[in-house]
Amino acid sequence: MNVEFINPFLSSLMNVLATMAQTELTPGKPKIKKDEVACGDVSGLIGMVGPQTKGSFSISFDEGLALTIMERMLGERPDKINEEVTDMVGEITNMVTGGAKNLLGEKGYEFDMATPIVVSGPGHTITHKCDGPKIIMPFTSADGNANIEVSFDKL
Amino acid sequence: MNVEFINPFLSSLMNVLATMAQTELTPGKPKIKKDEVACGDVSGLIGMVGPQTKGSFSISFDEGLALTIMERMLGERPDKINEEVTDMVGEITNMVTGGAKNLLGEKGYEFDMATPIVVSGPGHTITHKCDGPKIIMPFTSADGNANIEVSFDKL
Repeated sequence: MNVEFINPFLSSLMNVLATMAQTELTPGKPKIKKDEVACGDVSGLIGMVGPQTKGSFSISFDEGLALTIMERMLGERPDKINEEVTDMVGEITNMVTGGAKNLLGEKGYEFDMATPIVVSGPGHTITHKCDGPKIIMPFTSADGNANIEVSFDKL
Repeated sequence: MNVEFINPFLSSLMNVLATMAQTELTPGKPKIKKDEVACGDVSGLIGMVGPQTKGSFSISFDEGLALTIMERMLGERPDKINEEVTDMVGEITNMVTGGAKNLLGEKGYEFDMATPIVVSGPGHTITHKCDGPKIIMPFTSADGNANIEVSFDKL
């Protein structure tokens, strides 16, 4: 796996957030994760399984950014991370991974997606336990930060 | 999916912890999760994808229990949840799911496993975003509590 495999997830995320929530994130520089830890207040995680590979994807949001996305989608800002917010994060996780799956499928990398899991809790950290390299990509916005992380075995 | 699908995960977990860490957990009553929230300080999560179904599994530990398991495996108790502990939780997640996969495979339910993800952060909560029912099973021990949760679409 190399840094290029992050790009389908990056473009899928930008597309999903622009379409669903008129939200633009500024992507930072993708990094091979060593000691860096992806940190957030609410995260969506999903497993991926294919004939050539398996792996995992996560997206973590600061609380403020998650609430802003929710506000733009529904017109009302929740007070805190509630079930509607975790549903929305699960849905974003599915849509971003589904978009990346289509883009990677065109390049001959096929995988199926498991069902998403959403974690909430202030400042939790996420570690992908995969033999392959973990690629992390930070995003900034006026409303808070987000991170995506992708890890595949054997790519 | 019905409550019986939790049993392969239950017996696999009991087996893994007894073998790896001479640790016995007392299983509570499995419940179809409605409002209950699985809560823990360190959790392992994994996606599952098969021809008939897809889903997700998680196991959450109180910090004290995770550190005790680590101590029994390595002879030394870490001060806090560090990378060795998250590696151990990822490994337990793999082993428990692998054991359950074998047991469910004997019944004709086949799936492949994605790679595990470990979340750490005091008192985080986990929500499986799956159309099917979510089954949660609590465990108690002298050293702290654990929860497993399993969710499959279309079983």
